[in-house]
Amino acid sequence: MKNFFRLFLVLCHTILFTSLAQAQSQMPKLSLSEVSSIKWADKRVEWLDKAQANMPELKHTLVKPVAIVEGVADDGAFQGWRMVKSDQAIENFYKTSLKGHAPIILDLGDHYTGYVTFKVNHTGMPADAPVRLKLTFAELPAEVMTPFDPYTGSLSRAWLQDEVITIMRLPDEVKIPRRIACRYVKIEVLAESYFDFVIEDFSFDAVTSATGEPMALSEDCDPMIRRINQVGLKTLAECMQTVYEDGPKRDQRLWIGDLYLEALANAYSYRNHTLTKRCLYLLAALADEDGYLHATVYEYPTPMPQINQHVHDYSLLYGVALLEYFKETGDRQTAEDLWPVVEYQVEFARTYLKDGIYDVNKQPAWWLVFDWKDDLNRATPMQGLMTFCIAKSYELAEMLGYEDREPVKEWEKVLDQMRRASKSELYDKKRGVMLSGEQGQISYLSQAWMTLSDTFSRKEAQRAMRYVLEDESTCYPGSPYAYHYIIEALLHCGMETQARELMLKYWGGMIDKGADTFWEVYDPKDDKRSPYGMHVVNSACHAWSCTPVYFINKYKHIFQ
Amino acid sequence: MKNFFRLFLVLCHTILFTSLAQAQSQMPKLSLSEVSSIKWADKRVEWLDKAQANMPELKHTLVKPVAIVEGVADDGAFQGWRMVKSDQAIENFYKTSLKGHAPIILDLGDHYTGYVTFKVNHTGMPADAPVRLKLTFAELPAEVMTPFDPYTGSLSRAWLQDEVITIMRLPDEVKIPRRIACRYVKIEVLAESYFDFVIEDFSFDAVTSATGEPMALSEDCDPMIRRINQVGLKTLAECMQTVYEDGPKRDQRLWIGDLYLEALANAYSYRNHTLTKRCLYLLAALADEDGYLHATVYEYPTPMPQINQHVHDYSLLYGVALLEYFKETGDRQTAEDLWPVVEYQVEFARTYLKDGIYDVNKQPAWWLVFDWKDDLNRATPMQGLMTFCIAKSYELAEMLGYEDREPVKEWEKVLDQMRRASKSELYDKKRGVMLSGEQGQISYLSQAWMTLSDTFSRKEAQRAMRYVLEDESTCYPGSPYAYHYIIEALLHCGMETQARELMLKYWGGMIDKGADTFWEVYDPKDDKRSPYGMHVVNSACHAWSCTPVYFINKYKHIFQ
Repeated sequence: MKNFFRLFLVLCHTILFTSLAQAQSQMPKLSLSEVSSIKWADKRVEWLDKAQANMPELKHTLVKPVAIVEGVADDGAFQGWRMVKSDQAIENFYKTSLKGHAPIILDLGDHYTGYVTFKVNHTGMPADAPVRLKLTFAELPAEVMTPFDPYTGSLSRAWLQDEVITIMRLPDEVKIPRRIACRYVKIEVLAESYFDFVIEDFSFDAVTSATGEPMALSEDCDPMIRRINQVGLKTLAECMQTVYEDGPKRDQRLWIGDLYLEALANAYSYRNHTLTKRCLYLLAALADEDGYLHATVYEYPTPMPQINQHVHDYSLLYGVALLEYFKETGDRQTAEDLWPVVEYQVEFARTYLKDGIYDVNKQPAWWLVFDWKDDLNRATPMQGLMTFCIAKSYELAEMLGYEDREPVKEWEKVLDQMRRASKSELYDKKRGVMLSGEQGQISYLSQAWMTLSDTFSRKEAQRAMRYVLEDESTCYPGSPYAYHYIIEALLHCGMETQARELMLKYWGGMIDKGADTFWEVYDPKDDKRSPYGMHVVNSACHAWSCTPVYFINKYKHIFQ
Repeated sequence: MKNFFRLFLVLCHTILFTSLAQAQSQMPKLSLSEVSSIKWADKRVEWLDKAQANMPELKHTLVKPVAIVEGVADDGAFQGWRMVKSDQAIENFYKTSLKGHAPIILDLGDHYTGYVTFKVNHTGMPADAPVRLKLTFAELPAEVMTPFDPYTGSLSRAWLQDEVITIMRLPDEVKIPRRIACRYVKIEVLAESYFDFVIEDFSFDAVTSATGEPMALSEDCDPMIRRINQVGLKTLAECMQTVYEDGPKRDQRLWIGDLYLEALANAYSYRNHTLTKRCLYLLAALADEDGYLHATVYEYPTPMPQINQHVHDYSLLYGVALLEYFKETGDRQTAEDLWPVVEYQVEFARTYLKDGIYDVNKQPAWWLVFDWKDDLNRATPMQGLMTFCIAKSYELAEMLGYEDREPVKEWEKVLDQMRRASKSELYDKKRGVMLSGEQGQISYLSQAWMTLSDTFSRKEAQRAMRYVLEDESTCYPGSPYAYHYIIEALLHCGMETQARELMLKYWGGMIDKGADTFWEVYDPKDDKRSPYGMHVVNSACHAWSCTPVYFINKYKHIFQ
């Protein structure tokens, strides 16, 4: 089973799209109209309209480079590179003749997402020929210093932000068409002629939809917590565009898992709840014809789902995201509107239950994200997550007064059955931990999800969490996304000191390594780890890594 | 002296711009206001206005690719490559999945100048990542088949028409910003993802300002002459944009030498005389402050000269171009307006005369184009050309009734002095040819210019022209530009058969090698010859090569 999942994850992108297309036709024909009295097709248009009506306006900020920098190879630095300020003042850059010049790296001083414009002009005699420039935009020092080719990554090479442009006539103002996410800008002259030329002006039009004013931390807050909060806020703001994006450099789109965590952090910082509302409606409108949510959707050129891209842990988290939104805003209308979607996700997941256990072998099997960690066995984490999500969905039903409706009124029983099955089938009473898969893997995430789902008693949870914290052989988390749930689980079972320590250690570790924004992937043991075969394609500003903002501002007494 | 010229030519671009800037300050201070009663500065604005008022409208034609082709290495083909039609019909191209596809070459069926637009779309599931394409646009088979890098050319690499583009979201319509001149379009997928995609549509918006209807040739015209005329017309039309450009792929600008020949060909084909008028005014408006014409000017972003770029043979040809324009159109107003410019060029050139001989050693020395031929000694050709141009300028003065004015009334005497000096100083009576430089070089161009300037009697001219045609050791022409004057000289001295034969041999040679348009450089002995260090940067559609159109349609009894 472990191997099955490993293979499943590695090949998920490549295989899923074809195999699931076939699998789709064998899917249980449980449709939204069966679990609800509402007609799905009618709702789809209304929901999309509501999503579009809640489109946020982007705030624009003009950013100028603050320094010219140079990369220095340094084994002690994150991914082997650090930047130092050059002797050249930035003011001189605009007068620097670029003819025959070596590559120049500009530093914007922080991470920004937006649009690059610059003016190129000849100095002295007019240009007799076009100029060809290569611009490389990078979030990290190692990214700007590492040649992109030969590219060994598994995702499209086109995500890497280097652009070759031909400027036919000078003077000219050049606007790079693609939106950029970067701190560093490398400028290389690929072709020139006899004339001298300069970049007269360089502007970065930074955009975000994060407009609210985050709360101030307490005055005596630990400086590292303060810095983690600051970088978390920056990470979140960069990802808040016209949807909650997963990363402004790569993917640039709404995923359910990221939405859930970003909405949590937003609720404790910018409080731009209309963005959350927009995303909830957008996902609902773009579910498949039966009602199963797509894990990710696109906004452009027109809103559309990544067809057949379903993630079973993500779809269940949708209900939790709606619950939290309702709690924060009291927006009953939206919660009532979107309730059928939540109900469908639960009912559809229930078809995967076999004697109270989520059957990972049942076909079609779905992608389970959970973490960027190939060796994680996902069976028990999924069992815990599903229990957690049904419990939260039931809580939402109660708030809406739907708890006595069919099929909701069965859910308490389902929860009871699942928890009992987990305890009887997956629990190693002797060691006090949940095992996963045929090899009986002990992972952080199995314990965390069994804690969050109240499958464990508080005491059992503490014992299990302590086990994984102390036993170095357990399968540890690979991403900030997974760490979020570990911290949440520690807080849930009252292990506040450990939660604080773990946050300081993990997110503080990124700060120590110079993070301007929190990274998609961070393995303290391997700076260059990448789920995509090449570290330069990793996202260095990733939504799912921003949740310290949520923890620090929600649990003030613990973190501030 | 030979070596001086050789060095001068090779380094002219690089050295001229700095050395001439200094030289400029030592220039004889003979200003337009001294040779004319008109104030130059006042005229400059008026002339620029007239140039802009005569801006032609461009005619747009929608062109679609006609075939998918493949390059075949073939030592017998021009520059080693020929194209063959692929088995794939062009109709299938728009349905061809490009995911993982090898490079594809589209054939537009002929040479076109304009703008490329295409639509990219996913097939099946939406695109989860950007697409990165490289498009290479080429005029010639060898150009599309030869890697541009490592680039060994001396002109800007940016002239080569390859563009790397990132398409962030599909479907999208992509417009290549730069204007393209090509027949072949190579499409390479540099980066892709899991999804399939196609180019749904590909359009070429071809532009030209050639709108008139050329005359039909006589019905019994030699098929090769007919084809030469056709290709010449195409070459001219491609170069007729908002000015007479030298080449639509490279340089893309107005040069005096090209203007003169294009205007001649236009007068015998499209008859779009307002374009000629515009160019004459534009050059006049952008002369230097003393009145010396710049050899080339730019239209964009605003009309401006290539500062310090003077070519002494070109500036003298301006008067000839104005004369021919006046003869064709009877537009006395323009001829009178621009007369001071012609007068200045002659008077300025007279300051270079020493005992009736143009002194190539006098400083500042100017670039003399004449041909793309490093080993050509330009002293005697320049002597002949200057004599020819003063004679033609005097003819213009006579038409305007200015022949008795100062300084024009001295010109007949100057011409007489120059012709006598040429005969006494440069003529090898024994062999009947003009010699050039200290080594006494015998070249086609020396004889041609002495013929055209009537320095030779008709009989002497025939003897000299026969000498170079028959003696293989003479310095032969390297470009169609030079061949034009050879043909013109042969016609001028009554060697009609030889003129026709030479055209059939030289331009027919290009036709035999598959020319769609006539090339900037053509040396029958060396297909890959380039004045720029790499044949791919040569222009394959070059204005100065279109003049068979002029000969064939002017001298019908000889050519048709």
